[in-house]
Amino acid sequence: MTGMKANGLKVLDREECIDLLETTPIGRVGFISDDGPLVLPVNYHWHDGGIVFRTHAGQKLEAAVKQEKVCFEVDRWNSSPRSGASVVVMGVAREVTDWAEKEQLENIGLIPWSRDGWRRLWVRIEPTEITGRELA
Amino acid sequence: MTGMKANGLKVLDREECIDLLETTPIGRVGFISDDGPLVLPVNYHWHDGGIVFRTHAGQKLEAAVKQEKVCFEVDRWNSSPRSGASVVVMGVAREVTDWAEKEQLENIGLIPWSRDGWRRLWVRIEPTEITGRELA
Repeated sequence: MTGMKANGLKVLDREECIDLLETTPIGRVGFISDDGPLVLPVNYHWHDGGIVFRTHAGQKLEAAVKQEKVCFEVDRWNSSPRSGASVVVMGVAREVTDWAEKEQLENIGLIPWSRDGWRRLWVRIEPTEITGRELA
Repeated sequence: MTGMKANGLKVLDREECIDLLETTPIGRVGFISDDGPLVLPVNYHWHDGGIVFRTHAGQKLEAAVKQEKVCFEVDRWNSSPRSGASVVVMGVAREVTDWAEKEQLENIGLIPWSRDGWRRLWVRIEPTEITGRELA
């Protein structure tokens, strides 16, 4: 079920948001870096009610896990005919350090797209708010 | 011409970055909102060396133009075979208020995807740094 905002934008309900999160391989993490706001794409999984992805220690993305708040965005769109939807997740990022939790994540089939070696660091974003809408 | 970073990630040169910016209809603006980092998709044009898009006054995106620094991201990817590239633009956002500049922008053919009425506000992001890489 979808709602309609006053300005005419269709709002996605939670089920539609989760569906987009579950079926999209690439999303973007927004956080505050030393140089200001930074947005970086990651390949991720929606797992157990949150967003998980891998990164290298020492990479820019590592900064995201040191912050209280991050934003995660996914979208899907077609140019012809023009259509699309986006989901924005506000949340809190943390490094996964628990051994059992990491072991479980190693088995969800999340394979990094890049060929730059093994990414040991698991990051999980715990959503605090999930909103979706037709692409505007 | 492309470079290779120490970790094996391919770095896009400026021409490749501009090409992705010129040929992608949807990008994402990252900025600091009252609620923390926020990433929102916009349909945009690469115009005269910068990013331009429209928005409503009073919308969340309006906050972006009040800030010194914003980030703009585009990417393109395929799931099979896995491939992709992304470009990250660090820059400064401002509302376009000059009459002649607005008049010019009205004629570049940037039509909002949303059906939520006319978007009077033009925003321009002046790049301070453009980087691109293979999607990781």
